[in-house]
Amino acid sequence: MADTDKSPDSSRRSERSRRAILDASLALVGEVGYNKLTIEAIAARAGVGKQTIYRWWPSKAAVLLEASMALSGDAEDEGEWTGFPDTGDIAADLKHVLRLTVDQFNDEKYEAPARALTAAGAIDRELGEKFTRQLLEPALVLYENRLRAAQAAGQIDADIDVRIAVEMIVGPLTHRWLQRTNPLTHDFADTCVDQVLRGIAPR
Amino acid sequence: MADTDKSPDSSRRSERSRRAILDASLALVGEVGYNKLTIEAIAARAGVGKQTIYRWWPSKAAVLLEASMALSGDAEDEGEWTGFPDTGDIAADLKHVLRLTVDQFNDEKYEAPARALTAAGAIDRELGEKFTRQLLEPALVLYENRLRAAQAAGQIDADIDVRIAVEMIVGPLTHRWLQRTNPLTHDFADTCVDQVLRGIAPR
Repeated sequence: MADTDKSPDSSRRSERSRRAILDASLALVGEVGYNKLTIEAIAARAGVGKQTIYRWWPSKAAVLLEASMALSGDAEDEGEWTGFPDTGDIAADLKHVLRLTVDQFNDEKYEAPARALTAAGAIDRELGEKFTRQLLEPALVLYENRLRAAQAAGQIDADIDVRIAVEMIVGPLTHRWLQRTNPLTHDFADTCVDQVLRGIAPR
Repeated sequence: MADTDKSPDSSRRSERSRRAILDASLALVGEVGYNKLTIEAIAARAGVGKQTIYRWWPSKAAVLLEASMALSGDAEDEGEWTGFPDTGDIAADLKHVLRLTVDQFNDEKYEAPARALTAAGAIDRELGEKFTRQLLEPALVLYENRLRAAQAAGQIDADIDVRIAVEMIVGPLTHRWLQRTNPLTHDFADTCVDQVLRGIAPR
């Protein structure tokens, strides 16, 4: 933020405006989709002027990216997410995280903006690469790190391609979610984890 | 088609128009996306009147669905696809098909309309369910049948959830393709198949 007035009141107002803008962008992208989302509509919903948004963000993509990252941060604050667990039981840890993802995809608040952004990113290469780099990849790296720890502990095969193992865990869920082939359930998450782990177990 | 003039010349003309409309719809959806695609633009590109399209199809979704099915049919005619192979070697058969899918996703002609339709279907539930039911599910069933044959032959575990195994094979590819996380290669296809098969091998 390039705000020059640094009084406490102004900071509080700025933070309130910032959150109102991020919340409005998430609500609206879920309602109207990425293409029809406008800075004007976000400003109107947030009760701020258009210029307030343009002062802090160069584009609607930038607003949404920060909003999505803030949404992930909220989940952490609410205790839904406290870092990728490492209890020593790789199956339990992966199931825990994949079940949380299932829960998010079954929760309209997370699902609607995630769907709108994923669809927009699928079409718009530049936008998609930005979201993949800044939102998706950091999440995949957490899976990778947990699997590498399990690999170091001798719980999964040393020759396994860990990155592809991660995609085998999250890919079916994304496939089922985006293309609505079948319901997303905890059972589904558990079976994915079990079948992937069997495939990458030490020989 | 509800054409009443059944003379040979008229049939040829109709078939030519039908193909021109389907081809135009695929080219245009790749260029402008599903939302901006109009029947008018398809008609102009195909060199036919709007009414010709409305005589045969009720909506742009219906045109695109038939066009996508025709595109799959073309691949069969060109010998790129001759039914899901069953050579007795489940790994070789799955790799063969998954490599073909990788090739299609690396071919603009297939990739652009598939991406536009998948993104549109992700947003528009009704459209998405239609595409999933009429295009995606029939393809997944071919995988399922091949895996069930391998299961009957004792090559994969009797207790495995075959449907989820299919999603473990195609999910990572869809994930990588739509979200552009990493390049789609034959090596990737092969590793996916190998790691999934290890996971569902007889215990």
